[in-house]
Amino acid sequence: MMNRKLRMGMVGGGSDAFIGAIHRLAAFMDGQIELVCGCFSINPEISLSSGKSYYLPGNRVYKTYQEMFENEVKLPEGDRMDFVTIVTPNFAHFGPAMMALENGFNVVIDKPITFTLDEALQLQAKLNETGLLLALTHTYSGYPAVKHAKQMVAEGQLGKIRKVFVEYPQGWLSSKLEDSGNAQASWRTDPKRSGKAGAMGDIGTHAHHLAEYITGLRTTSLCAELNVFVPGRLLDDDGAVLLRFDNGAKGVLIATQIAAGEENALKIRVYGDKGGLEWAQHEPNTLIAKWTSKPTEIYRVGTSMGTAAAANTRTPGGHPEGYLEAFANIYRNFSFTLRAKMNSEQPKPEWLDFPGVEDGIRGMQFIDAVVEAGYNDNVKWVPFK
Amino acid sequence: MMNRKLRMGMVGGGSDAFIGAIHRLAAFMDGQIELVCGCFSINPEISLSSGKSYYLPGNRVYKTYQEMFENEVKLPEGDRMDFVTIVTPNFAHFGPAMMALENGFNVVIDKPITFTLDEALQLQAKLNETGLLLALTHTYSGYPAVKHAKQMVAEGQLGKIRKVFVEYPQGWLSSKLEDSGNAQASWRTDPKRSGKAGAMGDIGTHAHHLAEYITGLRTTSLCAELNVFVPGRLLDDDGAVLLRFDNGAKGVLIATQIAAGEENALKIRVYGDKGGLEWAQHEPNTLIAKWTSKPTEIYRVGTSMGTAAAANTRTPGGHPEGYLEAFANIYRNFSFTLRAKMNSEQPKPEWLDFPGVEDGIRGMQFIDAVVEAGYNDNVKWVPFK
Amino acid sequence: MMNRKLRMGMVGGGSDAFIGAIHRLAAFMDGQIELVCGCFSINPEISLSSGKSYYLPGNRVYKTYQEMFENEVKLPEGDRMDFVTIVTPNFAHFGPAMMALENGFNVVIDKPITFTLDEALQLQAKLNETGLLLALTHTYSGYPAVKHAKQMVAEGQLGKIRKVFVEYPQGWLSSKLEDSGNAQASWRTDPKRSGKAGAMGDIGTHAHHLAEYITGLRTTSLCAELNVFVPGRLLDDDGAVLLRFDNGAKGVLIATQIAAGEENALKIRVYGDKGGLEWAQHEPNTLIAKWTSKPTEIYRVGTSMGTAAAANTRTPGGHPEGYLEAFANIYRNFSFTLRAKMNSEQPKPEWLDFPGVEDGIRGMQFIDAVVEAGYNDNVKWVPFK
Amino acid sequence: MMNRKLRMGMVGGGSDAFIGAIHRLAAFMDGQIELVCGCFSINPEISLSSGKSYYLPGNRVYKTYQEMFENEVKLPEGDRMDFVTIVTPNFAHFGPAMMALENGFNVVIDKPITFTLDEALQLQAKLNETGLLLALTHTYSGYPAVKHAKQMVAEGQLGKIRKVFVEYPQGWLSSKLEDSGNAQASWRTDPKRSGKAGAMGDIGTHAHHLAEYITGLRTTSLCAELNVFVPGRLLDDDGAVLLRFDNGAKGVLIATQIAAGEENALKIRVYGDKGGLEWAQHEPNTLIAKWTSKPTEIYRVGTSMGTAAAANTRTPGGHPEGYLEAFANIYRNFSFTLRAKMNSEQPKPEWLDFPGVEDGIRGMQFIDAVVEAGYNDNVKWVPFK
Repeated sequence: MMNRKLRMGMVGGGSDAFIGAIHRLAAFMDGQIELVCGCFSINPEISLSSGKSYYLPGNRVYKTYQEMFENEVKLPEGDRMDFVTIVTPNFAHFGPAMMALENGFNVVIDKPITFTLDEALQLQAKLNETGLLLALTHTYSGYPAVKHAKQMVAEGQLGKIRKVFVEYPQGWLSSKLEDSGNAQASWRTDPKRSGKAGAMGDIGTHAHHLAEYITGLRTTSLCAELNVFVPGRLLDDDGAVLLRFDNGAKGVLIATQIAAGEENALKIRVYGDKGGLEWAQHEPNTLIAKWTSKPTEIYRVGTSMGTAAAANTRTPGGHPEGYLEAFANIYRNFSFTLRAKMNSEQPKPEWLDFPGVEDGIRGMQFIDAVVEAGYNDNVKWVPFK
Repeated sequence: MMNRKLRMGMVGGGSDAFIGAIHRLAAFMDGQIELVCGCFSINPEISLSSGKSYYLPGNRVYKTYQEMFENEVKLPEGDRMDFVTIVTPNFAHFGPAMMALENGFNVVIDKPITFTLDEALQLQAKLNETGLLLALTHTYSGYPAVKHAKQMVAEGQLGKIRKVFVEYPQGWLSSKLEDSGNAQASWRTDPKRSGKAGAMGDIGTHAHHLAEYITGLRTTSLCAELNVFVPGRLLDDDGAVLLRFDNGAKGVLIATQIAAGEENALKIRVYGDKGGLEWAQHEPNTLIAKWTSKPTEIYRVGTSMGTAAAANTRTPGGHPEGYLEAFANIYRNFSFTLRAKMNSEQPKPEWLDFPGVEDGIRGMQFIDAVVEAGYNDNVKWVPFK
Repeated sequence: MMNRKLRMGMVGGGSDAFIGAIHRLAAFMDGQIELVCGCFSINPEISLSSGKSYYLPGNRVYKTYQEMFENEVKLPEGDRMDFVTIVTPNFAHFGPAMMALENGFNVVIDKPITFTLDEALQLQAKLNETGLLLALTHTYSGYPAVKHAKQMVAEGQLGKIRKVFVEYPQGWLSSKLEDSGNAQASWRTDPKRSGKAGAMGDIGTHAHHLAEYITGLRTTSLCAELNVFVPGRLLDDDGAVLLRFDNGAKGVLIATQIAAGEENALKIRVYGDKGGLEWAQHEPNTLIAKWTSKPTEIYRVGTSMGTAAAANTRTPGGHPEGYLEAFANIYRNFSFTLRAKMNSEQPKPEWLDFPGVEDGIRGMQFIDAVVEAGYNDNVKWVPFK
Repeated sequence: MMNRKLRMGMVGGGSDAFIGAIHRLAAFMDGQIELVCGCFSINPEISLSSGKSYYLPGNRVYKTYQEMFENEVKLPEGDRMDFVTIVTPNFAHFGPAMMALENGFNVVIDKPITFTLDEALQLQAKLNETGLLLALTHTYSGYPAVKHAKQMVAEGQLGKIRKVFVEYPQGWLSSKLEDSGNAQASWRTDPKRSGKAGAMGDIGTHAHHLAEYITGLRTTSLCAELNVFVPGRLLDDDGAVLLRFDNGAKGVLIATQIAAGEENALKIRVYGDKGGLEWAQHEPNTLIAKWTSKPTEIYRVGTSMGTAAAANTRTPGGHPEGYLEAFANIYRNFSFTLRAKMNSEQPKPEWLDFPGVEDGIRGMQFIDAVVEAGYNDNVKWVPFK
């Protein structure tokens, strides 16, 4: 029985980055994971100073991810990392992920999983071959209230699902922020680093994942319009998508980064023939259930939700958990599953509730379809491939 | 100088109807209008008993609208009605409206204005010919907070408008209510009485009107999907529309009557390059303004809004006005304008702020386009005609 | 059977006043009442011009209320007014109210009912003697959601009531508005016109009434602190009160007019041993019910409330009613009761649901106790007398 | 320069406890602190199994806190703990805290700081003598929006503070939960373990701390009523307090644990002569500012707040932080200050922003005064001592 914290390495996430810090907060919170090594930047000096500020010994801070995997794999089990977290821009996901798997390391990776659908399929093949684990940080599915929504739908409480509205308005790219030296804006609006989709890749994929996660449905085709509102920008900063699901349900997906004044206002509504659900990320501990024949109900994290939410909640009702705890739920479930695997035990079913490579592939398929449809005034419906 | 209340007749609105009662409440509230006659039902007994319950003398309660116009026109000015309100199902708007105009009576009419676009154009021609007034009760544009939104956009506070989200979810038709004897459900889902559109005609037109009213933009083309979710229903009970506006802005319009558990949740968001606005009919006295560079602001009816809202507000801040007051604003502005006209005075500009035949024509064009696009998987964009 | 509108006279409510206009809107809305006469101001010219703007004939607009009652009582029934509405400042309530009763006219009166408790008791005696009707416009008890709250408590849904929090923050008197010519501020802060209490008389009485109305409990004693925050003001502009109820429940009542930035934020929460209720006037169509053992419920006017609310609602769910409709409910119930009485019929129980002289007396007792306790640092609890 | 994580020991917080787990989450999150030892329970077996589940070596898990301090103090610096966190029930705070200080260990302690005021004063004397650090986990002052409120008040944006409303309704003790084996309910309602106050000690102290923290004012006297609603309970489960502050401002404080259906609904409103602030813990990332002369503003964590909030925020706007992050802010600021001290550096001013022994003493004074006043019907105002 392994009686120690799991050991995490990191690619990307230097002290000048955004999402790497989030991953560390999420990984550390529950006392299950420690950071043991990393290659935190393509700039070796930033990597080194970052590693120092994370209290790592100098010999575990690497200049390249290749060096990291080559060195770590030689260390004894219990000393070397157990898994690597990849938090680089999209174009630099596939290389370290594939090399990690080839060297026997499990992987946590930020979304979208890769630069192209083909890369995602290659990762899937390698995972099948090696039996290693991969977690994809579709953060919003980590919220307990989202898990309760999924449970209510799965239990049939809403009846047959007919309609999904999912919207993700942000406003931070309302002006050409990428010209002012903002690192986040710079790579996310650059097709060479972000991929073929802008807002749709960055946040549209989250919205799409959430819709499929909660409903358990699969999109079969979509109709879309993508827009570039800020002059000179190379990728979509806005778009709207009509969705058709495999059970006949219909959806509307909105993702925009030019909704001036909006923060990160992801919201989803799902309607069946008996009732509807509403969840908004800005007030994440509340799930509103509306019914055809009784008063609207307010389900609250920690107070009135079911088993799925409870397994992903740390505090009693009224002690709000947030984005970092949702993120941490992915790490926690991944770490429990990985620990069970390393102990040759069966993971509990609720531990398996974290996004993986299949979710990543769905995301790449969404990007492909939405870009194909989004700029074409003549083709109305594009199937998922 | 006319020193009396304006005199209203009514077609439809018997004691068994819904929207007629709303019209009377709205018309009476401000003490500017009195009901003097009516033909309240195609059932003469209901018309008579209704008229009695409205405290009308028997000789001013008519069996047919034809009889009403023929009789009223013979009465002396100041005794006969000044205008007629038409609150019958859609298919029965045109007849009484045209006859009213032909007999010199001004008209208030519920939306959609007519059964077909052609009828609306005929009314427009007759109005131009006669110089009479027509008000169309697109209620939601009567809310003071909506008028403040329009004013903020017109003043350029949001910058150039880029994006409009307007949604109108209702849930009351989630099951086949029309089979259970519900009169409202019965005619609104019947193509012979309602017209070629269901949800889109009933509430989609409100949403579309609101978008054009607030932004001052005009839709040029749309992409749509219409759905019939409840088996056996003959008209759309759900739909989603992508809109293109004449300044290059884009919109998403949702109208559904199968969003189980929703009441009447009309909501609109408008984004320019400087900021955004949000208004929801369920909390109508609040207008939220979001900005790229300062905190979100809460504008409140009666407290912090401008001249357009103030001219349509009766109470100080914190004394919530509602749907009936919004409705009454249409009647009040119409009545002030009509009174000025009857007094050969110039109406104040703010009195002219009520929907008219042009709004009705836009609504019919919307219905035509959305139905053309909504069931066709091959045509993506349909222009407004 | 009387088949006509009820005929209302008015004392106060000239075109320069606030609450008179509200009374007229409320009275007219339902088409049950018409204004036939009035003495609208102590300034005869204002009275006359006001009456003209309300479309009254000149001979029914009076210079004094004495003249009005003397003249009206001589007119034939069906021509003379049926009741008078008194909307003068507090000090001028008793005179016209008593004279109205002495002349056989029913009375609607704004709150607080009189200047002193003794005057209120005299009105009670006269009402008992004459059998006439009096309605007191404690507006907030007219809201349908408030009536549903009362019904839920009465049905025992909350269990035994333990705790009441009622708060009424306003901010409009944060500065010395009475010095700037504001007529409302002027008389409401003047002990000669308003009475011995300022904020507590003006809005504290509303809060207290609401607490007793919903719970059905009676305050037995109170502990209070009154404050005058704005220098030079003569009456309390702020205060807090601890309440003891006759069943052992406890309450906290807050009323302030110096809560800078607040509009009219009346809110009440009531807790029993099984659950709690929350209602806020700014969002009046929602009643929140919280439970120890099930999710919070949102009851909505027009959708999910019971018989008491339904009897006081005009529109379907999602068509928000507001302050004026709450006000109108008092007039409507009063008018139905009065009409039944004039027709020698039994009024329906729900029509009797309007505040009367007993409520007025409770209000005056509250004012007496709160002023006695509020400035005395040595006496903690003052009983209701 | 110390280049390692700070080393934390723990007294209490076994795997069967509540608040200990919260402290660990809060301490670990930022990657600045590691747990190195502990005495997690008075039951040695629970202590041992808990330590194991936290991945501690057996020789650093102790049977008594005395044993822990005696052993740890002998370990070399960098190996022994740097500070101890005390998360036992109130009656068992003083012993380990004093012994920690006597052995040179810094202390983090849950509130209320001690069982009696005298104990708190003894700790203060020892802190002054030793120069060691003590942090008190008044969690709610750790929220960034609360810090922004404090900053706005300090900058004079609200003008002179006049009024504070702070309320803390919970419902979890609406029935006699302590009889059903609930460990939390059991000790918190037991005067031998909790102290002389129930709800007022448990949550009233939080509310009082928040009021003084945000306003910078000090309570000088109070008027109170305490209640025991659940039969057989030995401590107050409800109470209301009127507060007088040193600048002439007045306050109302409500703390109750029998508000059936409420979770943890701490809320504060502060009004000055220019505007007011409102913050509710259930939606902690929003601070509402109301003004006498401009629209209400919504300040949001991560988006539109000032330096104090920014120094205590981890994520961009719209990525909600919650209770655990507020808690972690206390640990983070404490750890930065402690690290600076250990490095003989000057801590940054913002790092000093964590509650300490003075806040603990204020809390004990509040408990003393509120209990003295709360059951006495004859004494209205009790001064703070």
